[in-house]
Amino acid sequence: MSTKRKGRVTIPTDVDIVPETLEILEKWGGDALRDADGTEFPAELAEADAKIYKTYYTTRKDNAWAKANPDEVQQCYLMSAFVPALENGPLAIPLMKGLSDQLVEVNTRDSLSRWWEVIDRTTGEVVPYGEWDYDEETKSVIVHHPTRYHEYTASFLAYLIWDPVHMYNAVTNGWKDFEHQVTFDVRQPKTHAFSMRRLRQFIEEHPYVDVLRYTTFFHQFTLIFDELRREKYVDWYGYSASVSPYILEQFEAEVGYPFRPEYIIDQGYFNNQYRVPSKEYLDFMAFQRREVAKLAKEMVDITHEYGKEAMMFLGDHWIGTEPYMPEFKTIGLDAVVGSVGNGMTLRLISDIEGVKYREGRFLPYFFPDSFYEGADPVAMAKENWVTARRALLRKPIDRIGYGGYLKLALKFPDFVDYIAQVADEFREIYDRIQGAEPYCVARVGVLNSWGKARSWGSHMVHHALYQKSNYSYSGVIEALSGAPVDVHFLSFDDIKENPDVLKTLDVLINVGDADTAHTGGAVWEDPALVAAIRGFIAEGGGWIGVGEPSGHQYQGHFLQLANAMGVEKETGLTLGYDRYNWEEHKDHFLLEDGEPDFGESQRYIYALEGTTVLCQKEHELQMAAHEYGRGRTVYLTGLPYNALNARVLLRSILWSSSQEDKLHRWFSSNYHVDVHAYEGKGYYCVVNNTEEEQQTTVYCGDGSAAELTLEPNAIRWFDIQGKQ
Amino acid sequence: MSTKRKGRVTIPTDVDIVPETLEILEKWGGDALRDADGTEFPAELAEADAKIYKTYYTTRKDNAWAKANPDEVQQCYLMSAFVPALENGPLAIPLMKGLSDQLVEVNTRDSLSRWWEVIDRTTGEVVPYGEWDYDEETKSVIVHHPTRYHEYTASFLAYLIWDPVHMYNAVTNGWKDFEHQVTFDVRQPKTHAFSMRRLRQFIEEHPYVDVLRYTTFFHQFTLIFDELRREKYVDWYGYSASVSPYILEQFEAEVGYPFRPEYIIDQGYFNNQYRVPSKEYLDFMAFQRREVAKLAKEMVDITHEYGKEAMMFLGDHWIGTEPYMPEFKTIGLDAVVGSVGNGMTLRLISDIEGVKYREGRFLPYFFPDSFYEGADPVAMAKENWVTARRALLRKPIDRIGYGGYLKLALKFPDFVDYIAQVADEFREIYDRIQGAEPYCVARVGVLNSWGKARSWGSHMVHHALYQKSNYSYSGVIEALSGAPVDVHFLSFDDIKENPDVLKTLDVLINVGDADTAHTGGAVWEDPALVAAIRGFIAEGGGWIGVGEPSGHQYQGHFLQLANAMGVEKETGLTLGYDRYNWEEHKDHFLLEDGEPDFGESQRYIYALEGTTVLCQKEHELQMAAHEYGRGRTVYLTGLPYNALNARVLLRSILWSSSQEDKLHRWFSSNYHVDVHAYEGKGYYCVVNNTEEEQQTTVYCGDGSAAELTLEPNAIRWFDIQGKQ
Repeated sequence: MSTKRKGRVTIPTDVDIVPETLEILEKWGGDALRDADGTEFPAELAEADAKIYKTYYTTRKDNAWAKANPDEVQQCYLMSAFVPALENGPLAIPLMKGLSDQLVEVNTRDSLSRWWEVIDRTTGEVVPYGEWDYDEETKSVIVHHPTRYHEYTASFLAYLIWDPVHMYNAVTNGWKDFEHQVTFDVRQPKTHAFSMRRLRQFIEEHPYVDVLRYTTFFHQFTLIFDELRREKYVDWYGYSASVSPYILEQFEAEVGYPFRPEYIIDQGYFNNQYRVPSKEYLDFMAFQRREVAKLAKEMVDITHEYGKEAMMFLGDHWIGTEPYMPEFKTIGLDAVVGSVGNGMTLRLISDIEGVKYREGRFLPYFFPDSFYEGADPVAMAKENWVTARRALLRKPIDRIGYGGYLKLALKFPDFVDYIAQVADEFREIYDRIQGAEPYCVARVGVLNSWGKARSWGSHMVHHALYQKSNYSYSGVIEALSGAPVDVHFLSFDDIKENPDVLKTLDVLINVGDADTAHTGGAVWEDPALVAAIRGFIAEGGGWIGVGEPSGHQYQGHFLQLANAMGVEKETGLTLGYDRYNWEEHKDHFLLEDGEPDFGESQRYIYALEGTTVLCQKEHELQMAAHEYGRGRTVYLTGLPYNALNARVLLRSILWSSSQEDKLHRWFSSNYHVDVHAYEGKGYYCVVNNTEEEQQTTVYCGDGSAAELTLEPNAIRWFDIQGKQ
Repeated sequence: MSTKRKGRVTIPTDVDIVPETLEILEKWGGDALRDADGTEFPAELAEADAKIYKTYYTTRKDNAWAKANPDEVQQCYLMSAFVPALENGPLAIPLMKGLSDQLVEVNTRDSLSRWWEVIDRTTGEVVPYGEWDYDEETKSVIVHHPTRYHEYTASFLAYLIWDPVHMYNAVTNGWKDFEHQVTFDVRQPKTHAFSMRRLRQFIEEHPYVDVLRYTTFFHQFTLIFDELRREKYVDWYGYSASVSPYILEQFEAEVGYPFRPEYIIDQGYFNNQYRVPSKEYLDFMAFQRREVAKLAKEMVDITHEYGKEAMMFLGDHWIGTEPYMPEFKTIGLDAVVGSVGNGMTLRLISDIEGVKYREGRFLPYFFPDSFYEGADPVAMAKENWVTARRALLRKPIDRIGYGGYLKLALKFPDFVDYIAQVADEFREIYDRIQGAEPYCVARVGVLNSWGKARSWGSHMVHHALYQKSNYSYSGVIEALSGAPVDVHFLSFDDIKENPDVLKTLDVLINVGDADTAHTGGAVWEDPALVAAIRGFIAEGGGWIGVGEPSGHQYQGHFLQLANAMGVEKETGLTLGYDRYNWEEHKDHFLLEDGEPDFGESQRYIYALEGTTVLCQKEHELQMAAHEYGRGRTVYLTGLPYNALNARVLLRSILWSSSQEDKLHRWFSSNYHVDVHAYEGKGYYCVVNNTEEEQQTTVYCGDGSAAELTLEPNAIRWFDIQGKQ
């Protein structure tokens, strides 16, 4: 394994660094070159020994078309602020308040009565058109006879007159003197026909290109800016900018019930990640996925007709292409590329099926914010690589790559050297484990309202973005991304449709706040579902609940699995009950590596009688274990990602599925070190996830143990017989 | 004002301390003597210059009767645990699990099919009688064909075979060798007739008694013990031990709809303090109040017939006598006596109307837990007195008194001296302010689901008991008890019935957690109510919200007055929205005395645009001010009681009602010092509420100011012209 490997690495280039690009191609073993926003591909490199990627912007960079066809500019649904009728007389609802007029323009072209909706939010009732109309001058909806002291909102359609990603890039980087790129809607008939011609022309004009990197297809995730051009709202999974009367009429025809703006607006929540999705919204998503897949396939087919590969960027205008849903495979893409911020985002890419290869764009970007004088891009790259490597060792992506301006990186020779090392390490890992089944101790289902559609992204508000009220939950997903378990994302609907799906799992995990999509909300009033889940546990399954799992006030409980978990939340309604079960049991299998960090934790949780209290703080429970029938449950208030917490999660999986005896198989006594075994391939590796040297005892699959010392960040490979 | 005052003080006595009692009567200026549980009144004192109180136990201390009439022993409703059907086949629900069999005995005398209820808590449906029955041997309800993995509860009637207060006293004090006193139900026909005879006989047998101290009337507040005789559940306002088929049939006849046990059981929440009360429960309370008042009046009439006074103890078997409800006055009581734990509990007594006098029992009790060798009962008494004095100066009780064993107190001469001083101070205060209207800056309404029924007790779980999740809210009520404002407790129903009630108020206060009776829950879906409250604010009223005021998820808001308060809570549903309003504005009228302690505070609160952020911590809002129409609102995450917080509440009241200019009237610059003015009487007092000397600037009603230094705990009186 000492031969220098080559390939599987993509490098950004530019016209003014041709010789340097060739040098880096050699040094990093690169086999593909790409452009970046604001760079040009140098003709001299067309003949280099590398594939050439070119970004293709499906919905923008053609303002001539967009301006000639204003009726087919991409639209989005927006909701006004909540405006109270504080005085008698007509009420004006200014639509553009809090919105950038550079970003959106009110659509008055289509029927207001059909596509807009004014709602009395104090009663929840729709105000009929006629009782309100629109005043062009003030850009306000006027409610003629509002009920005094009620609050009103107006839902309306607007055109995206500046592509949100273009705006984001421009505002963030302070661009000057450029034209705002308008987003056109490829789904609509004229633009559809135009876009296919445009695509062919583009391919014909760039004969040296091997791979069309679609960025992306047709609809941008929700991204709104305010009057000060500050980000106002973002939802990486949001569908609100995928609408138009043209599309919505088709949707209506398909589902057979009348469309309402409220299906998208959703009281201003826009069916975001946390909302338990309505039937209508799920219908709309399914409709959009089918239509997007159909149209994307047309483009991919054209790409293939020219002998080129089609690669999709996982982000930006990616709405409708959820890669874990069945429609995705029908697009016929060759590849997917996405940004890798951590383990979850790596798995978000590497677990995708239905493409030939998957590429991860690693950090840092070669941008001035990371490559200024005195910066330490090596440290950033190291952290990014080591964090992602945990997940990579469970399921590798097929390629790695970088973005930005190569000339910035060249000023940091240490960085150039480090990436060469990463590239080699990646290739060795890939060569060894590609196609292998890593050893898994359990099949784990992450249960929420979204299921597969949000695989690995189940707690993301924006792509990999930190949220104070969220990291203590998303840490569970991050831990799973590198854990020796087989992870499935499933929805409550999956169980309702086929309760037998539970038979394929050892452990269910439910993580999040009450009455959100992460824990399910009112779904817990469904007796068949609740019985199926209780039955799963009682018949020997494991349940791990984090935060307010099964949280929904109903029939005497706040946590609907309170009795199964042996844990309840005090919301004030049971303060009259005395509680005596506070004694901690620290000598428990779950705590043998230490007590986890509970992050933001949870308030006012307590254990029922008979529950094993593991951790509590000032009479607020933090962790507990419980038996229920023949099954077991573990409760945690929160579990942000760190090495010890990942270990506690592994122990929870093993304990809850009554497999504690399997702990010392392919196991490292030191939780900063991971062991991954590929029994089919005949070897295993031991990985130090830290910047420090680590000592550990490594346990093989047969339980035999050996001491090992690992250099910082090292990965060491061994044959399963024990010889390196 | 230097003459030694006498009277208005009640002293406990016993057979073995006759001369000492006379000495203390003299020293403390006592004018009444009382027995205590476990003491005997000494015949020698019958002729002392003091009224004589004797406790009368209406519902117990006659086991002969109770045992001869087991059908009229007092009953209560109880609910079993939630029992899951984990296996196929019949499900046993053991009724006595978690219950003391010394306290309660299952009632199988009355019809099970009529008075019991088995509920499938997974569906919320009632299981019909016949599909379940009762197994006497195992004391279990057997559900014959439960749905597997559903959870079931059984609601049933039980007899109180040991009076809960007697049990509490016995268990707490480790009594041995005594008979458990059984509670009999005076409401039932035989016991009713017997009780009137018994009362007459008691009065006749105790001719020296002047005042019958009823402890209390007929129904004990809910107080349950478990198998280990530990307190299991307590609700000082709970009605669950006021039931019997005899009573419930009358209730049914009166309201005209069928009774269901669930009206009392309430999913196991027993309609406690925090539950938004159902219509049926309010009906039941009203029915009980009327019936209790009617029957209590019979006893009071008999008392009067014998020329004695009737005094009611505010506690124990007090259910149905809520002193702020209209029925109370019809009882015809002469007096009420209650325990004073703080300012709220003082006002709970002193604000009662419809009696001739009100007496407060001060702390500490002369019990061994406070009067052991090395104890400091003076410190306890001082804290109790100074805390209560704030409230006393707003509205005095008419008498003070002590309980327990006088001989214990006699061993602490410092204590005896201190109480003499307290008694003098009390009499001086009383003489000066009785009947006076203290100066008030505003009329403040505390708004919740209970209104008047829970006046001053609106956040009590048990009488004055600390709760971690509650003290940050009840602190508001404590602050109000001594604040220069006119306090009204009103319910949402009060506003619904007569929105004009809001015209009598300057400020509304709403304090508590979302979806509890303290904040109202689903009442915020009532458009007329919401409009009335918004209108109140918009037309110039003040609103102070603490915790999760108006908290109830509905139509795009978690806090239904979010727009009025300019504050919302992040429950996950709006994480996609960016928030920029975090800059604190510390130079605000509300913060001129300092930043309050927010206690347990609240998570994830944020300010809307345009709101004045006053305090935030790591991007979690703690305090904000906002204007809405012509009105103003103040939001606080919590406000436990302390001197600064009380001042912040006063400032909030003034600011929200646009009366900041009135701050420097009858005002002390030092918030450890209070100023109370009695303009009708022509004087005011300045009070030091601390153990330390305090310096302050005192502002009179005309704004004139003077410096003052006060001794620790001192109270100083001044004529309004400025001369002492």
